[in-house]
Order: sequence, then C-alpha cells, then structure tokens
Amino acid sequence: MNYEPALETYLAVWNERDAAKRLELLQSIVAPEVQLFDPLSHLHGAEMIAGFIGKIQQKIAFARLTYTTKIQKHDHGNWVRYGWGIWLVGQENPVSEGMDVVEFDDSGKVLQIVSFMGKLA
Amino acid sequence: MNYEPALETYLAVWNERDAAKRLELLQSIVAPEVQLFDPLSHLHGAEMIAGFIGKIQQKIAFARLTYTTKIQKHDHGNWVRYGWGIWLVGQENPVSEGMDVVEFDDSGKVLQIVSFMGKLA
Repeated sequence: MNYEPALETYLAVWNERDAAKRLELLQSIVAPEVQLFDPLSHLHGAEMIAGFIGKIQQKIAFARLTYTTKIQKHDHGNWVRYGWGIWLVGQENPVSEGMDVVEFDDSGKVLQIVSFMGKLA
Repeated sequence: MNYEPALETYLAVWNERDAAKRLELLQSIVAPEVQLFDPLSHLHGAEMIAGFIGKIQQKIAFARLTYTTKIQKHDHGNWVRYGWGIWLVGQENPVSEGMDVVEFDDSGKVLQIVSFMGKLA
C-alpha cells in the first residue's frame, strides 16, 4: 500500500486556511474513528481535528508545516513515521519540530496520528 | 501514570536468556492482546513475543539491548517513545539502532509496541 498520497494530503490540510476545504481534504483521507494525539491535545474525528488545526493557524503567526525527513514505512504493519517542522511568518528556522507515527487501516485510511514534540535524545 | 518501571522490565525481557523467566517478566507488564510490530515481524501475545526475542538472541551474537535516549511520554495520550540499540558480543558500536513507540492501556499494561529500525532522516 502506498501511503504517501494520503500523507501529502495531510500536509495540505495543515497548510489550508479555508476551514471548509481543510475539513474536506481531511475527510478524504481518514477513517471515521480517526484520532490525533497532538503534542497539545487529544482529538477525535475529522471535524475536531480540522478545527484544532485552524486554531493553531490563528494562534501563532503560522506560515507553513512541512515534512523534514523521508516517510519511513514499517515493513510489518500499517505504520509510518516522519519528521515535521512548523515555520512562523518571516522566520528561517522552524518554531517547532517533531515526529509523527501514523497508523492506517487496511483500506489505507488514517486511523491514528501520534505526534511527539522535539527531538528524541 | 509512571511507565518507566514497565519499560525497565521490557528491557530486562530482551536481556533475559532463560526462556521461562523471559516470558514471566513479559507477562507481568503486557495486556493479553499485546502486539509487537518489530522491524522483522508482527507478533501477537506474550508467548509469541518472548519466543521471538529468544530467536533473535540465538540468531546473532547478541550481547545486550539498551535504551539510547530518555523515555519521552506523550502529554495527551498513553504513548511513549525512546531510542534503542542492540550490541553484539565484543562490539563497541551497536549493530542495530532504532526507535519504539509504545501504547499502554489505562491500567498501565503494554498494548502495542511499534518498533522502527534506523535513524529517521
């Protein structure tokens, strides 16, 4: 299974400022029971997650979120991991960096995203 | 909840060469439905997991497994992550390094371990 298109859409969700488009994009890639364990909150379902992302965009001078590593797929389970960074407007270095592990169901929909802040050391 | 004692026991499981003791240690910290997504295999239940670890110990000149980072707990979910390394007999550098994310149930038993090989880059 190729998870990269869904994860490219997840990136687009974080960078989409239109609330309706953001929710529509997110709903296209997640299972109904999707959960996000964000560093700041635990959220259930596409509506809560899309709303939460909108609040983050408004709360900080959010410029963009990007992936900062390759997407590594687990060889024996529907899991991937990748690094991410959040940039503020006009800043060269990310204000926040971390790593997500993401579980997909057998049909390729996102079941859960576990997001850790910072570097592991 | 303090997950560190369970994870210290999990480390002891990997380093225990007596099959019966290894299983007993593992059973003391996991839920019945525990799953290990190891880089090499997907395993269900304490018996399969303890047996798999024994096979790894026998297959390579296994000296020890240690954690190589702090254990980082997620602030909003029963998840932790940490780095690990496996050393062979007589070797200074690890033969294998990676990262686990571990989910606990609400009673503090291990539900699943998702183990990624290598450094994320």
